[in-house]
Parts: sequence; C-alpha cells; structure tokens
Amino acid sequence: MNQKNPLQAAYSHTKYQLANHGKRNIQVLKKAFQNIEGDLESDMYGKGQIIEDFQEKMAILLGKEKAVFLPSGTMAQQIALRIWCDEKGIRKVAYHPLCHLEIHEEDGLKELHKIETVLLAEKNRVIELNDIMEMEEGVSCLLLELPQREIGGQLPSFETLKQISTYCRNNGIKLHLDGARLLEVLPYYQKSAVEVCSLFDSVYISLYKGIGGISGAILAGNQDFIEQSKIWKRRYGGDLISLYPYIISADYYFEMRSHKMQQYYEEAKELAGLFNSCYDISTLPLVPVSNMFHVHFHQAKEQVEPILIEVQRQTGIGITSYLKEIDETTCYFEVSIGDLYANVPKESITKAFRKLDEKMKQRFHCK
Amino acid sequence: MNQKNPLQAAYSHTKYQLANHGKRNIQVLKKAFQNIEGDLESDMYGKGQIIEDFQEKMAILLGKEKAVFLPSGTMAQQIALRIWCDEKGIRKVAYHPLCHLEIHEEDGLKELHKIETVLLAEKNRVIELNDIMEMEEGVSCLLLELPQREIGGQLPSFETLKQISTYCRNNGIKLHLDGARLLEVLPYYQKSAVEVCSLFDSVYISLYKGIGGISGAILAGNQDFIEQSKIWKRRYGGDLISLYPYIISADYYFEMRSHKMQQYYEEAKELAGLFNSCYDISTLPLVPVSNMFHVHFHQAKEQVEPILIEVQRQTGIGITSYLKEIDETTCYFEVSIGDLYANVPKESITKAFRKLDEKMKQRFHCK
Repeated sequence: MNQKNPLQAAYSHTKYQLANHGKRNIQVLKKAFQNIEGDLESDMYGKGQIIEDFQEKMAILLGKEKAVFLPSGTMAQQIALRIWCDEKGIRKVAYHPLCHLEIHEEDGLKELHKIETVLLAEKNRVIELNDIMEMEEGVSCLLLELPQREIGGQLPSFETLKQISTYCRNNGIKLHLDGARLLEVLPYYQKSAVEVCSLFDSVYISLYKGIGGISGAILAGNQDFIEQSKIWKRRYGGDLISLYPYIISADYYFEMRSHKMQQYYEEAKELAGLFNSCYDISTLPLVPVSNMFHVHFHQAKEQVEPILIEVQRQTGIGITSYLKEIDETTCYFEVSIGDLYANVPKESITKAFRKLDEKMKQRFHCK
Repeated sequence: MNQKNPLQAAYSHTKYQLANHGKRNIQVLKKAFQNIEGDLESDMYGKGQIIEDFQEKMAILLGKEKAVFLPSGTMAQQIALRIWCDEKGIRKVAYHPLCHLEIHEEDGLKELHKIETVLLAEKNRVIELNDIMEMEEGVSCLLLELPQREIGGQLPSFETLKQISTYCRNNGIKLHLDGARLLEVLPYYQKSAVEVCSLFDSVYISLYKGIGGISGAILAGNQDFIEQSKIWKRRYGGDLISLYPYIISADYYFEMRSHKMQQYYEEAKELAGLFNSCYDISTLPLVPVSNMFHVHFHQAKEQVEPILIEVQRQTGIGITSYLKEIDETTCYFEVSIGDLYANVPKESITKAFRKLDEKMKQRFHCK
C-alpha cells in the first residue's frame, strides 16, 4: 500500500473535493465499458473500426484532414516536431522554457532525435509575436502550448495567435499546437476547435485531462503528416496490437464532457475568486482563462500545510492533496475544474473558505 | 465495417478454430476486469500498487532483480539495446536477419538511436555459437529470439545457449533475450524461466502471445538497467499516467494460462503431425518446439486458397484466415496453439484433415 503523508490523508478523507472529475480508479474504465458489447472486435495495430472511427471523429473536431491515436502526448509531440524538422532539413525547434518537452520528458526530444531547442519568452509569461520575430534563424517548427500549463494556464490573445500564425507561414516555420487542454480554452476564446486549429499545421490534444479518459492522445494534421506519424508511431513502439481500452474510454468521456468546458471555465473563475478573497493567497492567473489555475500561498510550505490539513479535516471540503515549494516564502498547487465542483454544496464551500481565510489571518497577519 | 476476403469469411464462419485463445474482442478486457473492485486506484506514471506488484512478480518469475512494464515489446527491446550500447560506448548490436527489430519496426532502432546492426546466420536457421565467434568486433549486445518466430518458432539447443552465454560474458558482449514467447519454450527445454534467463543480461517477454493479454511487455534485468529503462520509457512516451488496462489483464491471463504451456506444446506437436500427414503440406519446424509452427503448402497461394475455403466451409473447422505467399510455388500461415484447440472434438479434427488431404491430392497429385 502507498503511504499517504498527512496532507494527502486529510484530502482523501474529505467528503467533497473542489477539483477534478473524481478518483482515478478502475471504475473509470468499468463505467466506459459498461454498455460496450463484448463481441466488438479489437483494433489491430492501428486498423479496425474502433480506432479508425475515433480518429475520423477527432480529425473532424479539429478541422484537419487526418488524425492518429497515440498512447501519449509525449510520443505525439516528439513525432510532430521530428516530422517538421525532417521536412525543412534542420533539427531545430522553438518553444516556451516550461514546455512539457523541455521539463517532463527526460530530454526525449534531444536524446532520440538530436533536435536543438530554442527557448522563447521568460518563464513567467506566454510567448508573444515579438519573441518569434526576434528569434534566431533556422527554426523548423514553433510549438505553442494553449494554455501554458506550468504558469497556471495562461493564454495569448486570439489576435496574437493569428499574427503568430501569419508570421510563421510567411517565414516557412511550421506551427504546432500543444493543445493538451485545447477544448478547455475554447470558451475563453469564444472560438471553435476548428477555428483555433486552422492557425496551426499540426495539433495534439490529450484525452485524459478535461475529457478525463484513461490515457491517450490525438495528433492531427494533413494526410501526408499523419501517414508519417503512423510510421513514427511504429518506430516508437506505440503501434500497439490493441489500443481500445484507451480509445473507447476516451470516446465515452469525450461524449460526456466535451460540451461542459464552458461550465468548468465559469466554475474556475468562481473558485479562483474565492481563493483570491483569502489572506495571503492568490491565483495565477488572477482570473482563469480555462478550467485551470494555480493557487499561490505567499508563505512557507511547512507553515501552510498544517492550515490546509486542519481546514480540510474540519470542513470536509477537499482543497488539495499536495503543496509544491517555489521558494522559502511561496508554495502552490494546481486546480483543474472537472465534474466534482458542481456537486459541492455552495454553503459548504463558503464555510470552508471563511475558515481558510481565518486560519491564514490568525497565523500570518502581523506576525 | 471491415470487408473480409473469402478466406477470412470462411474462417470466421467456422464453429471451431484450431489455433489461438479465441477472438480478440472487448470481452477479453471485460472478463479480466469482472472481479476487480472499482475503487482500486490506478497506477500513476509507473507508481502504485497495481504496476509495482506486477513488476515484482515478473522479476521473480524471470529471476532478475527488477522488471518494468512497458506498453510494447518494440519499446522494450530498443531501450534494452540502447542501454547496453551506451554502457559499452559503441552503437552496434547483432541479431538474426528476421529479428523483429529488423523487419517489423520501421527501422526504429536505426532512426531513433543510430545503432548499427550486424545480421547473424542465414535467414532459414537459428544463430549458433560459430556465428557469434566469427562475427565482427565491437558488438555491444547480442539479441537472441527464443523461439525464432519468423522461421516457425525454432530453437537452438540449451547447450548452445549456455555456450553462447559463456562466450558473450568472456568477450564483454551483453546478451539480451527476445523472449516474446519465452514461457512457450520452457516445456521443450525442460527448464524454468529463471534457468533460461540466468544466461541473459536482460530479458523481454510479451504479455499478449501465449499469455493472451491485451497488450504490453515486461523488460527485466538488474536494478541499474531497469532504472535506466524507466528513464527511456519516459523519453519514449511510454510512461503513461495509467497502464492498468494492460497490467490487470496481463496478470489475469498469466494466472489463467502460464501453467498451460506444456499442454499447448503437446497439442502443437499433435496438430503439426496432422498437417504433415496431408499431401503437399509440411510444417516448420517438422516437430514443433513450442506452441507455434508454420504450415507450408508447396503450391501457389491462389490455388491453395479455394481448397482451404471449401474445407473450412464443409467441416466447420477453422484452419486459417489467411495465406502468405513465399514464392510462386509456396505459401504458408502461422499457428499458435492456445485455449481453443482442446475444445475441438477430435473426430471433427480427423474429418477435417481427411478432407484437406483429399482435396490437396485431388487438385495437385499427378496434375
């Protein structure tokens, strides 16, 4: 059994939780398969109705010629960048310093592909047109992440996106969308997925974040790009004999949640407001532009932790199971709104935040 | 819907099938999860009880310090070879000309790792000690596949394996086992998995062949090797947030079938005997050394196909759904014995083979 630390334990014993869709347990799979007939045939190495139908559905959603289902976003994006590098003949790409490929993939892009990376913008802000206009020559592909997850989920304006897209097209730079949370930003932009994706040459979306599937990713683009992606999928060992456990669950939760992104976005703004009303707490961004944001405590982690444990124990409201230290005077956690928030009684939320504010004041005000 | 060709159609309408465990459909997953509690927590990026327990069980089975679960054998073996190349500092490996990495992976090993390959032995036989003693210098790792699948599942003697292992150890060459079908060869060798694996530095086994899970692979070796493998797993995009759909089903079918390999082996020998009793048909190997073999027809594919369609339609016994052309006078298909064979009535089998022999004679004898 996994040992839980006190904050995890306090969170796991709460009656209600503010964020996410619920526990990542086996029930997630069981529910998705409940009404699937047992005699439905497995996909076979990328072929068959289950995978082909879902790929087509996702291609239409994103307004691209073709799409391919891959086990992970890591695989999807490395493949995309490699294809665009090969097309231009230069192994150089540009992205944000906190891009998933730069900080979460053990340097797979560099170790597997010898692709050089150019980091654009400061860590604490999104990439703007100027960053791209000033970047060094010879970049084959620019990756934009919408929203920029590691800084709480921030977005450039849609106007900026359009300008970046035009600039890239005029300068022979391919534009790839890290849209792990693409559906989650559409309510803010007030655009369809097709409208956003039309600015990009290739698009990746995740199937287990806002959608809440088990695992898996979609990579979309033109026909030639996707045909090449399928070859790389095989090279990576991602062309599994059966991917249906992920595909069927992705489709099930897509149908259940893709129309709820506006709701999650509104709830995220409401919840962020509650955090911002508490002493020494603020959210990043201050007003969310998707279903996600970061909650910053302007105090040391070991001093905030006991407060969060106490508030969660006393109110039964699950706020967070962890805190990450930024420095000696700041710590934070991430919130992604999912199905659970709507089920938490409003008066319990109000009570919990009153308590949190009180405890923070008691502990830190005029100390 | 997938269109079936006439041979596929005839096979799919048979009452009994000689090979395999049954259809690869969604029921395979449903059955494995039937008795799993919904509140069991998912594995999370390689951590958690489900994945850690299974990895430990497989490490014990194979007699290695550690094991890691990976989505595919393709990923597992490329990773193993890369680690051994890095250790020696030379990117050169040796294997059989029909090795999975050489013919089924779109050259992933070369495209992702720039690893040079040395092909040992002729295509139609297994690697022997002499091939290794005569091979060029500087090979970091030798991969042996037991059984050699593409030639019907053939094996070197256990004595040869021991000699190869000793030679490699004395000459600083790492020895990797492609044991996709390792459990399937143990009855022939009359050895435990631990005894076979002790001859190798690293071992891969597949979880959806003889075991009949959905997808997935185990890579096993010493602790340092597995720690490095986990880093590569992340680089490849194989470190999925949840791998439990594959792990739980692998464990379920492992428990159901790992003790049945002797039975499959005996049945394979019996069935091969029946094929060999037919006119112009022979199996490779003539006497199987595992649950698998190839069935060769010494006639053109388009002439054999109508016969197989007719026999399957008339007898209700499923022999094969496809034929592969070798040249204008030979075609073949592969047989892997699984759970189904034991359920086919003996008299129906006898009748089907009598019919097959008759039709082959009628069509080809003294033509």
